[in-house]
Amino acid sequence: MTEAKSPTALPGAAAELRHQSAHFPDGLALDCGAVLAPLDVAFRTYGALNAARSNAVLVCHALTGDQYLAERHPVTGRGGWWEAIVGPGKPIDTDRFFVICSNVLGGCMGTTGPREEMPGEGRPWGTDFPSVTIRDMVRAQKKLVGHLGIARLLAVVGGSMGGMQVLEWAATFPEMVFAAAPIATAPHHSAQNIAFDEVGRAAIHSDPDWRGGRYWEEPGLVPAKGLSVARMVAHITYLSEQALTRKFGRRLRGASALTFLEDVFEVESYLRHQGSTFVHRFDANSYLTITRAMDYFDLAAEHGGDLAAAFRGTQTRFFVASFSSDWLFPTEESRTLVRALNQAAANVSFVEITSDKGHDAFLLDEPEFHAALGGFLRGAADKLGV
Amino acid sequence: MTEAKSPTALPGAAAELRHQSAHFPDGLALDCGAVLAPLDVAFRTYGALNAARSNAVLVCHALTGDQYLAERHPVTGRGGWWEAIVGPGKPIDTDRFFVICSNVLGGCMGTTGPREEMPGEGRPWGTDFPSVTIRDMVRAQKKLVGHLGIARLLAVVGGSMGGMQVLEWAATFPEMVFAAAPIATAPHHSAQNIAFDEVGRAAIHSDPDWRGGRYWEEPGLVPAKGLSVARMVAHITYLSEQALTRKFGRRLRGASALTFLEDVFEVESYLRHQGSTFVHRFDANSYLTITRAMDYFDLAAEHGGDLAAAFRGTQTRFFVASFSSDWLFPTEESRTLVRALNQAAANVSFVEITSDKGHDAFLLDEPEFHAALGGFLRGAADKLGV
Repeated sequence: MTEAKSPTALPGAAAELRHQSAHFPDGLALDCGAVLAPLDVAFRTYGALNAARSNAVLVCHALTGDQYLAERHPVTGRGGWWEAIVGPGKPIDTDRFFVICSNVLGGCMGTTGPREEMPGEGRPWGTDFPSVTIRDMVRAQKKLVGHLGIARLLAVVGGSMGGMQVLEWAATFPEMVFAAAPIATAPHHSAQNIAFDEVGRAAIHSDPDWRGGRYWEEPGLVPAKGLSVARMVAHITYLSEQALTRKFGRRLRGASALTFLEDVFEVESYLRHQGSTFVHRFDANSYLTITRAMDYFDLAAEHGGDLAAAFRGTQTRFFVASFSSDWLFPTEESRTLVRALNQAAANVSFVEITSDKGHDAFLLDEPEFHAALGGFLRGAADKLGV
Repeated sequence: MTEAKSPTALPGAAAELRHQSAHFPDGLALDCGAVLAPLDVAFRTYGALNAARSNAVLVCHALTGDQYLAERHPVTGRGGWWEAIVGPGKPIDTDRFFVICSNVLGGCMGTTGPREEMPGEGRPWGTDFPSVTIRDMVRAQKKLVGHLGIARLLAVVGGSMGGMQVLEWAATFPEMVFAAAPIATAPHHSAQNIAFDEVGRAAIHSDPDWRGGRYWEEPGLVPAKGLSVARMVAHITYLSEQALTRKFGRRLRGASALTFLEDVFEVESYLRHQGSTFVHRFDANSYLTITRAMDYFDLAAEHGGDLAAAFRGTQTRFFVASFSSDWLFPTEESRTLVRALNQAAANVSFVEITSDKGHDAFLLDEPEFHAALGGFLRGAADKLGV
């Protein structure tokens, strides 16, 4: 385990960030055929590993998340992205569990990705970074888990793209996963989701500051406008229509009557703010790499078109959760997953949480969801005698 | 009535377009307080006006539509956008009705808009074009209808933004509208719809070729990348998830297995194509102007917050239609409209068409919808003795 300094300049405070990181000189063989070597996996842990090394819970983050799960984020200064879920006495109870979260392969918070140095080139990988898959991300996490001396994870938990990783873990390394909680996710990315991702990528590609992916040639330059538009469109898909309406309705900004200015509706300035803050913490080439990985994800296709085959003979216990107003990963896709798990005779419980908060609900204060996830993990731990 | 030549260069064939147009030297007073003078309204008609001038049906087009309703489009060379509906023996029967369709105020097919010449300036309006509302669009159409010598329209019909215009017609000039058919529309634009529009506008604003709206300073220059991204995101909202999946699923382009190239999914190249063809026929400043008009639209707000008050005492008969998989203008918004019409004691029939084609269904082959609309219009014509 080493402390690695990010080799390239991040805007603002991140320039001096040092991430807790594991270094693997032999690297990682990828689905695309390339070998990434060396491999660094940046991560954070919370709680203590017990003597039997049996209480480890791996949390997998979503597209724009990172390893700063349950603590102040070093770039944004905001709280951890799953502080509602992870902490002492919380559903993922750090008094009982040893919680691990690593930055995904291809990410931009210390794990090997487009912003890190391309070996022997003295410059970032940029668009020369190979295409990665969700399964590649999971293979990198497996190296970290081995590095930490853990033979089996009590649980792997994650929402959205994190849930895709949970499914890959259970399908690819079933003997290492006692319990799996894929949340607000799907066994493949839908045509509509691919389409929205493509809009985001087109916006980045269209920004002249992207420079064919070589924006890092000019210190401090990022394709801010394109990345901001990508974030804006993605952000809409994270919220339900009801949530947007409740938050903003058609409220006007500082105007009691209709004026004919730009940025007249509150929802517009909110989205612009979401876009402009995002570019200070996320790398555009990482965004391209990771959205591609999501789009490639198709667990059934990896198993001859038979989703149930991905889980045949599994001993893993599953907890599947969806949210009623999530239109990015609708409940129907969780039902497809549950049907396949049932076909594979897996131990599975499924809950659709009634919520009007959309896809984002998995990150928010949803007591019913928290109680169900907490209960599932306690049950798994009790079963294992943790 | 004059033949006006578009004063600024359009890309490709459109440069030499001459639109059938009505010229109003006195212009139009707008909701924002400005007076647009002169005003030109470009239009097309189909069928013949009867001697009593009682068989006129005004069709209002949507955001990116235009007056070329039922004939080959002079720029794209494709069929008219509502040829499925408008023609001899069709639901809007040109053997019986005199059909009028005009390019909306702020549009870019000959009606006064950002691409037309700013009086006395010798250059296009561009971003100096005043903000317009749906009601302003309707006022411009009213001038055209008067110019054509028509005192009352047999019907006003339109889908999407066209439906908003239908509602404004019925609310603002009820004595001129015998029958009204607002289709796949809503009495206001939702927060989610405003948000998607804002993404499109941000993409245009982000394109350096937009040049603060002064792209017309360089002949042939258009903010093609930004406008293309705007079109791509809008296009997703026009289709249902089911329609996208049926059309494309996760099919790969010319590849039997997963490759790691760009543009690997069919849905991506389709969207890119949609975006790139759009920029050759639509003006970016028009897109900004018209999406703003849609976002401003809030019929209840124009009537003290009471939607029913917009229709109080109306003698107009209404036909409201929605499509079950339309998530841009969901059925619930049509129901809100129907409840208000009922409160106002209006004569209203409502149908939700079962379709998996999304918002686009109103443009497509939907026999149940066509039969219902055709029946409504025949009934109205019979009642008037047309």
